[in-house]
Amino acid sequence: MHKVIFDTDPGVDDAIALYFALAHPDIELLGITTTFGNVRVHQAAANALYLTAIAGRTVPVTQGIASPWVQPAGEPPAFIHGDDGLGNLPQRLPCSAAVDPRSSAQFIVDTVRAHPHQVSLVAVGPLGNLALALKLAPDIAALVKQVIVMGGTVNEPGNVSPVAEANIWNDPHAADIVFSAHWPTVMVGLDVTHQVVTELPLFERLAGHHKHPATDTLLHAVQFYSHFYSGLHKLRFSVPGCFAHDLLAFMVLVQPDFFQTESGVVRVTTEGPAKGQTILKRLDFMSYPQPGWEKSRPRTAACMQVDAAACLALFEQTLFAPWLQAPK
Amino acid sequence: MHKVIFDTDPGVDDAIALYFALAHPDIELLGITTTFGNVRVHQAAANALYLTAIAGRTVPVTQGIASPWVQPAGEPPAFIHGDDGLGNLPQRLPCSAAVDPRSSAQFIVDTVRAHPHQVSLVAVGPLGNLALALKLAPDIAALVKQVIVMGGTVNEPGNVSPVAEANIWNDPHAADIVFSAHWPTVMVGLDVTHQVVTELPLFERLAGHHKHPATDTLLHAVQFYSHFYSGLHKLRFSVPGCFAHDLLAFMVLVQPDFFQTESGVVRVTTEGPAKGQTILKRLDFMSYPQPGWEKSRPRTAACMQVDAAACLALFEQTLFAPWLQAPK
Repeated sequence: MHKVIFDTDPGVDDAIALYFALAHPDIELLGITTTFGNVRVHQAAANALYLTAIAGRTVPVTQGIASPWVQPAGEPPAFIHGDDGLGNLPQRLPCSAAVDPRSSAQFIVDTVRAHPHQVSLVAVGPLGNLALALKLAPDIAALVKQVIVMGGTVNEPGNVSPVAEANIWNDPHAADIVFSAHWPTVMVGLDVTHQVVTELPLFERLAGHHKHPATDTLLHAVQFYSHFYSGLHKLRFSVPGCFAHDLLAFMVLVQPDFFQTESGVVRVTTEGPAKGQTILKRLDFMSYPQPGWEKSRPRTAACMQVDAAACLALFEQTLFAPWLQAPK
Repeated sequence: MHKVIFDTDPGVDDAIALYFALAHPDIELLGITTTFGNVRVHQAAANALYLTAIAGRTVPVTQGIASPWVQPAGEPPAFIHGDDGLGNLPQRLPCSAAVDPRSSAQFIVDTVRAHPHQVSLVAVGPLGNLALALKLAPDIAALVKQVIVMGGTVNEPGNVSPVAEANIWNDPHAADIVFSAHWPTVMVGLDVTHQVVTELPLFERLAGHHKHPATDTLLHAVQFYSHFYSGLHKLRFSVPGCFAHDLLAFMVLVQPDFFQTESGVVRVTTEGPAKGQTILKRLDFMSYPQPGWEKSRPRTAACMQVDAAACLALFEQTLFAPWLQAPK
């Protein structure tokens, strides 16, 4: 079993990823730590609670960091995820679940210490909770099994600038702290997430198969999200669909063999027109006069290629299996 | 004829480029404006005067900017070019030539205004003189024929950091001013200069052919420089040699057909571990939330591929022709 803390800002692709994690038999979700990003953090926490409750599951949910490490807070991208982060749901079922009172960062610290060397942090939003956990308790770097970050890009053009991916751009200072910490880090960026498209008809079939509020909710959210992406990336989409950004972070967890990685020091640009760029030092043996690229720095495994067909097959197989329970 | 101001910090590869420019029948050198970089600026001016004088030529030489636009001045890389910039020449011939009393920036302004729409600026060092000329006289942007910059890199790893080339890294703020000005700009970066190696035996044959102090001096300088580069880039060099960095700026001038370019907005990172990176906006049609990449910004043609064999053939043909006169 993979013990996981899922750090997330749901968000439509976060919801897809969350349901994959809940459905996959080898993933044990120890908690969901939420952050600002696709929505404000109180909405992110509410969505995480709601999505797990209607799937009939109980997972601790915490509310985390509400604004970036250094830069001013921005507006959530309601045009992508809806005002509520789930494509503007017309109504919600009653949900009595409540957040764990701890901060997301404290929850990470407590949980990692309780399960030393066993916990994978799967982080798919801006990285403030992880940075804050490191500041609260630097010892956890040595106790975490691995950190899987959905964010950044190496070769693929960015989605908020020519070189920046949105999660990293939303809090570049926090990201640089996370990539500079001495824990094993895997970067799942646009280089691979732009290679995998989950298509709307799959979610329609899924909803028809389960006839369950959770998959109905997911379909509604994906309809909204795919409308945005299909317009923007016409050439990539044969039918309406969306990039499988956050889902791929869990794919790396359970099927690292689906990916090809390149390893090296990663640094994040924090200011100026290239803000949020994740830069991979490709010539590992080189010494440079520019500080910040020392060979002693921690290395990140950046995902560069992915077997898209294998990911989509595993996603479908996992989500069509019986995993849903009566809403709580 | 190509009317040219050569902005340079000689430097060994600068000397190679200068002699190509002096030897090429279609290049009219209106002046040599010097800058700090490979050496301090007073040495750069002295070297430009000396190299032209021993070749028997008279070209106005100015002394230019001595330190970067914003960042503190660094030490010149004596281990690459020698303390004197020319591989530590054991002695110099007497040279009575004197610098033009104007600043390099003022010389650029005066000369461009005197020959509107005719002058190409070929800049192969840090870009402070060009930035200063723009500040002195913004009108010159519309009067310059083109700016050819040896500096930067798009895909090829940098030579002073994983992403930065030395000329740009030495004064990134000045470079961003130059790439952001409304004049036609061509970037000749490591993407192409690392594809062209001039080998030491060529300079030995050249010295033997001309039996002239200018080609003797060039051979001495290249011996020093190639010793450094051949050690660093063993896999690229079949025999001792050096990258033809600055030479390629003149190749673009006279033979643009030798190059393949990609055009888009270029911005320079000015701070942090990616300082000096030249970033090309590759998806020209995209609008981004990150400021600084607006479609209205000036575009640069970045050289991405080069016909190395054609460059080397033209270099040899040009330098072996009779072009040297008695030293002055």
